[in-house]
Amino acid sequence: MRKLMLSLVALGCVVSGHAEADRVAGQKVMRACQVCHGKDGIAQLAEAPNLAGQKQAYLEKSLKEYKSGARKHEQMAVIAGMLSETDIANVAEYYASITITATVPQ
Amino acid sequence: MRKLMLSLVALGCVVSGHAEADRVAGQKVMRACQVCHGKDGIAQLAEAPNLAGQKQAYLEKSLKEYKSGARKHEQMAVIAGMLSETDIANVAEYYASITITATVPQ
Repeated sequence: MRKLMLSLVALGCVVSGHAEADRVAGQKVMRACQVCHGKDGIAQLAEAPNLAGQKQAYLEKSLKEYKSGARKHEQMAVIAGMLSETDIANVAEYYASITITATVPQ
Repeated sequence: MRKLMLSLVALGCVVSGHAEADRVAGQKVMRACQVCHGKDGIAQLAEAPNLAGQKQAYLEKSLKEYKSGARKHEQMAVIAGMLSETDIANVAEYYASITITATVPQ
């Protein structure tokens, strides 16, 4: 049982270390995104969506759709076309890792 | 000059009152959205995007694209198809009115 626990702890460290590496790698890819979407994921343009704390699965799906052309957007087709599958996963990890809090007006 | 100032203040009240009415009307439309996207705009599903504090122009554009079929998504095509242009503007106002704060991990 102790061995199993230790293995699980070790596995947890590997998984968490991997996500951290992805986030840091994503930070480099993010340089192409920040012009419109902001470094903190709060968009600089009215037409561009905020990406802060956005769901990773949704971000990955969107970028893959822009890359394949399933989702149409002139600038995003160019940007996503330059990204590898790994870049997409990493930049999605970066924006998803931003913590957001939401306050609904009363 | 004083008349102009008063007119501008009055106009401000009308505009702000209108946005408030839109937000409240949007709250009713939001009932169809909250199952996946949350009442506070924090999505309940990994595949569904957060909408909290999202840019109004982006939300309106997205809903119109789902309605026209320019953007493809099985459930969103059904939901957006049921919404009028006014419903779309109002629900976009509702989710855009939610205040968000973003914290980038160090």
